[in-house]
Amino acid sequence: MSTSTEGNCYDVTTWPIGDASEDVGEVINSIIADIKVRQVANDVNHGGKPGAVITIPPGDYHLRTQVLIDISFLRIQGAGHGFTSSSIRFNVPEDEWAGLHELWPGGSRIIVDLPPAGDEEQATGAAFHVERSGSPRISSVEFVDFCIDGLHFTPDGSGMHPENTYVNGKTGIHVASANDSFRVTGMGFVYLENALTIHHADALSVHDNFIAECGSCIELRGWGQASKITDNLIGAGFKGHSIYAENHGGLLITANNVFPRGASSVHLEGVTRSSVTNNRLHSFYPGMLILAGDSSENLVATNHFLRDQEPWTPFRGVDNGLDDLHGLLRVSGSNNSVIGNHFSQIIDAQDIRPEGATPVVIRLVSGTGNFVSTNHVVALDVHSTSSDSCFEAQVDALLTTTASNDRAVTTVLVDPGSGRNTILDSGTDTQVLLDRTVNAVRATPTIDS
Amino acid sequence: MSTSTEGNCYDVTTWPIGDASEDVGEVINSIIADIKVRQVANDVNHGGKPGAVITIPPGDYHLRTQVLIDISFLRIQGAGHGFTSSSIRFNVPEDEWAGLHELWPGGSRIIVDLPPAGDEEQATGAAFHVERSGSPRISSVEFVDFCIDGLHFTPDGSGMHPENTYVNGKTGIHVASANDSFRVTGMGFVYLENALTIHHADALSVHDNFIAECGSCIELRGWGQASKITDNLIGAGFKGHSIYAENHGGLLITANNVFPRGASSVHLEGVTRSSVTNNRLHSFYPGMLILAGDSSENLVATNHFLRDQEPWTPFRGVDNGLDDLHGLLRVSGSNNSVIGNHFSQIIDAQDIRPEGATPVVIRLVSGTGNFVSTNHVVALDVHSTSSDSCFEAQVDALLTTTASNDRAVTTVLVDPGSGRNTILDSGTDTQVLLDRTVNAVRATPTIDS
Amino acid sequence: MSTSTEGNCYDVTTWPIGDASEDVGEVINSIIADIKVRQVANDVNHGGKPGAVITIPPGDYHLRTQVLIDISFLRIQGAGHGFTSSSIRFNVPEDEWAGLHELWPGGSRIIVDLPPAGDEEQATGAAFHVERSGSPRISSVEFVDFCIDGLHFTPDGSGMHPENTYVNGKTGIHVASANDSFRVTGMGFVYLENALTIHHADALSVHDNFIAECGSCIELRGWGQASKITDNLIGAGFKGHSIYAENHGGLLITANNVFPRGASSVHLEGVTRSSVTNNRLHSFYPGMLILAGDSSENLVATNHFLRDQEPWTPFRGVDNGLDDLHGLLRVSGSNNSVIGNHFSQIIDAQDIRPEGATPVVIRLVSGTGNFVSTNHVVALDVHSTSSDSCFEAQVDALLTTTASNDRAVTTVLVDPGSGRNTILDSGTDTQVLLDRTVNAVRATPTIDS
Repeated sequence: MSTSTEGNCYDVTTWPIGDASEDVGEVINSIIADIKVRQVANDVNHGGKPGAVITIPPGDYHLRTQVLIDISFLRIQGAGHGFTSSSIRFNVPEDEWAGLHELWPGGSRIIVDLPPAGDEEQATGAAFHVERSGSPRISSVEFVDFCIDGLHFTPDGSGMHPENTYVNGKTGIHVASANDSFRVTGMGFVYLENALTIHHADALSVHDNFIAECGSCIELRGWGQASKITDNLIGAGFKGHSIYAENHGGLLITANNVFPRGASSVHLEGVTRSSVTNNRLHSFYPGMLILAGDSSENLVATNHFLRDQEPWTPFRGVDNGLDDLHGLLRVSGSNNSVIGNHFSQIIDAQDIRPEGATPVVIRLVSGTGNFVSTNHVVALDVHSTSSDSCFEAQVDALLTTTASNDRAVTTVLVDPGSGRNTILDSGTDTQVLLDRTVNAVRATPTIDS
Repeated sequence: MSTSTEGNCYDVTTWPIGDASEDVGEVINSIIADIKVRQVANDVNHGGKPGAVITIPPGDYHLRTQVLIDISFLRIQGAGHGFTSSSIRFNVPEDEWAGLHELWPGGSRIIVDLPPAGDEEQATGAAFHVERSGSPRISSVEFVDFCIDGLHFTPDGSGMHPENTYVNGKTGIHVASANDSFRVTGMGFVYLENALTIHHADALSVHDNFIAECGSCIELRGWGQASKITDNLIGAGFKGHSIYAENHGGLLITANNVFPRGASSVHLEGVTRSSVTNNRLHSFYPGMLILAGDSSENLVATNHFLRDQEPWTPFRGVDNGLDDLHGLLRVSGSNNSVIGNHFSQIIDAQDIRPEGATPVVIRLVSGTGNFVSTNHVVALDVHSTSSDSCFEAQVDALLTTTASNDRAVTTVLVDPGSGRNTILDSGTDTQVLLDRTVNAVRATPTIDS
Repeated sequence: MSTSTEGNCYDVTTWPIGDASEDVGEVINSIIADIKVRQVANDVNHGGKPGAVITIPPGDYHLRTQVLIDISFLRIQGAGHGFTSSSIRFNVPEDEWAGLHELWPGGSRIIVDLPPAGDEEQATGAAFHVERSGSPRISSVEFVDFCIDGLHFTPDGSGMHPENTYVNGKTGIHVASANDSFRVTGMGFVYLENALTIHHADALSVHDNFIAECGSCIELRGWGQASKITDNLIGAGFKGHSIYAENHGGLLITANNVFPRGASSVHLEGVTRSSVTNNRLHSFYPGMLILAGDSSENLVATNHFLRDQEPWTPFRGVDNGLDDLHGLLRVSGSNNSVIGNHFSQIIDAQDIRPEGATPVVIRLVSGTGNFVSTNHVVALDVHSTSSDSCFEAQVDALLTTTASNDRAVTTVLVDPGSGRNTILDSGTDTQVLLDRTVNAVRATPTIDS
């Protein structure tokens, strides 16, 4: 009998148990149970448990039972990330909805209809929960080319429009235990409080996904190593993280286009020997890239940072609570390299907080031995306007440049808590604020110098 | 009735209407009509129009009817980009064709047999035309893993071999109206005058495609934002654009390998707050990377620029009309960052135009506040030769280095129309030509200095 | 008869000839023979040989006959790269194996059961051998989303545990003749002496693969041009290459996460006008990035280099034979650019070789005109420890930073054989060792300066 080469392709719409439209979670769990029954070999003579592929054709699938994954080599694959902006739709007047071409995301679309998680068991809100104890770590689970849609946000007590709160207790994929060689590729995540949360990742690849209009997008929790977050389109809600990692080493974050309005664009907590290079980062608030918790020996290079202001009416006045002295890039750690980045800080002078302050771009808060070189800061005053139309407002704002309205800016501020840093060609003498008896500095030459 | 989870997978070879071999356009249009008939819900209670996937197995498919796409969440997917060099084949003597293994591209291959477009209706030449008015913008259309082949180029009146003109009025994919979250992935485009033209893109991903031997390859028209062009192999014809974008903000162009012979490698017109980083760019002419139309606050970093000379006999003597004073990187705009790029300018001294001129590498034409730092220019005299064999000629040329034949070069030229720029470590005192009363400069140190 | 649009989709499990479980090689060869019989047109009127897709569902497939590919436009596609760590498993005591969830890699898994190659015919050890003479070059062969597993390593005479030798004479994919527009995407390679060896590549894409626990991972042999190795997770054995290329021009190596323990991370031999940018490179030995054989005009930028020490007990004491004066980046060539890289060199002082030496980070051995600017070197003493647990040991080591224990280091050493280089901001006066009469230098400023 050859259990390993037959029957390893499943389709949720043809599986005899359950009804994928009504509860695709029940269907997938039933398929996983079938794989386990069929793949029992543990054969040192090459026998295997090769896993399977579960196909989700384009369609709407309610998920009313959490999927529990505890087998390696499982690929769940759709045929379309299916993103459309639910946020724009919910902010269109309801009497116009009948005239819209479509109201919901699409593609191979999982509709998360789980009860929200309670505070003490966050993971239960996940559509896909991955966990396995024992050895080896669960490996090579792949999520490919489908959509996970949380449908609605819910009131948060602030009086904000419920669909704008980025709160609903729902998670797309939650990996709870140590794992190896996972892949998340071509996926769409929308209207989830947490899109993708992975604990204890090794050699993870999160590549070419569309993760937007979620409270938080990518969170690497616990600890981990040697992973990559590459070539994604990402944009979290104003309370959350677009990319967050803690206690990771050797993480490569590159070629991502991270758009607003995350509370941060990239937040690293106790992350070492990692790279944040070559990303395009856009935020409406300070605190775009955070190196916290003694994050050390990281390379932050050739990123494009743009901090401007919210142009879309529904979110005007919303912010992350940080003022303009916080820094766009804020470093609490040692021996990091900050090289060759471009920063554009485009603010209406009247909106600067504290009022009348000189905004800060790069701020070294604590640690030693950081190397900050060849960064270019552009600081402009641009009168901030808003529009009811999200796309047009954003494009208009992006294309508004007023080269003549340069504004005073602190390009690099080194706090007393940080020392022995080297700051080169990252601001003129008046733009770099630090103690020159404990930091090395070469100011960017000026015409007069 | 569950319209949303059944029947959303189509195969052009089994669809009962039309004959995919003879006219895959008719077949796909018929499928789209079927999707519309089946997916009519506009249900605020989660109902959807999830779209569909249309599969194109490997094979040759004539397209005699333009495909019109006006629904979201449609994926058209093949199983092979199918590129082979038609250009090399057409330049092999005809009496040798019988001995060739194959004459045409392959994979899942759409053969564009549309009548050429007239001047006034360019879009009609497109194999795939995407357009929808109203709201929301059309979203999540995906083109994946197939080949679009324009078959032949046509005489352009120049007397050039017709198959070398890069003219035929054919377009692969033309998106005419505002769109969101589109994907173009794993595709092959060959022998089209325009491969991929997209207007008004938001959060577009053009990733991991093979787009070569087309007049122009990727053009982002109108305006748009927050898109990415990443990890593609690209090479336009001598008249066209390899990558072109206008009025875009937050565009990320990275990890592309752009080979000759496009008139430019990357041309940005009125593009702001975008990144061109980490690409490998190769051209046979000046004018490789153009920042025009007040393109501002962009980051051009860690790209490899190689400008050498055409080694393949059929295109010897062809150029883009620009002389060697034009600049390899030419900036008309403000507050851009040009950091950490490598430039190799490998020319036969006798071919420099104007004769006897000192070629220019980076030229700032207009604008203010640009920051040019830490760029390395290598300028060598190498005797230019040609070969009838395209591949061998190119490899030979690429591997020819003659370190001892350094040539005089202007690494940075700042025109009077541009001022208040900062130029650091991007050329020695004699290589940087600018007005030091209006620009800040620090020359690259020399042994003597 | 329409041979080109029917029957071009094959499934190894349903093909009537052979038994895919027992010998998938025989099955695939039979399918290729069928494609050739069916696709005979050589029609100048657009007829084609479009190729085919061969599907490998998840499962275990022994390969006892080498696959011979000599047709263009062939895609071989699985549904899972199936990596799991065989190395960790083989180093678990055998009496614990019964308690392991699984013993082998999975996914669409090709088990290489070929006899090992003899010395004189290396290629015969390859599971997939691609070769075609004549014209045109074989084009657009695609390997997608499956696993190639070599199962076991074999004794190498050293007395080392046989499964740790990285020797078994097996190759995953070997391309012997000139080729164009090949793709290797989403693949897994494990326990092969050579994973992927490609001769004479043009416009090759090796993208988003998982290639680990192989003797050597990616080798581009012979010569070639305009290719890309992007966004892969890679880690070779201690004797081999993670990424190797020879006589290539215009190669783009970017966004890779290269982990230990390859003898080198990236080795370029006679490679010109290419880019190694934006990678994360981690090694346990010196000699991480090698530019040898007059490799010239390359850009090495914004990479993160980490050299620390083996933390996993089974490989403690193993090294690549190089001492700490060799350099982490070693250049034998001219006109290269080394810009904006971060280097962390984390060694236990007692393990430095030669004993008491000052380790070297960037070493220019021969050539002229190299430009080394804005590199940041972190050199720390960290007491080296080991663990029986691979993952935890590596994470622990990665997260161990001791900012206070700075160590003396030579950041740049220029040998007498190399001259006319420019070294800027890549080390203090005492850290840069070179002849200032033949090299230009600007030391990184210090607090005192």
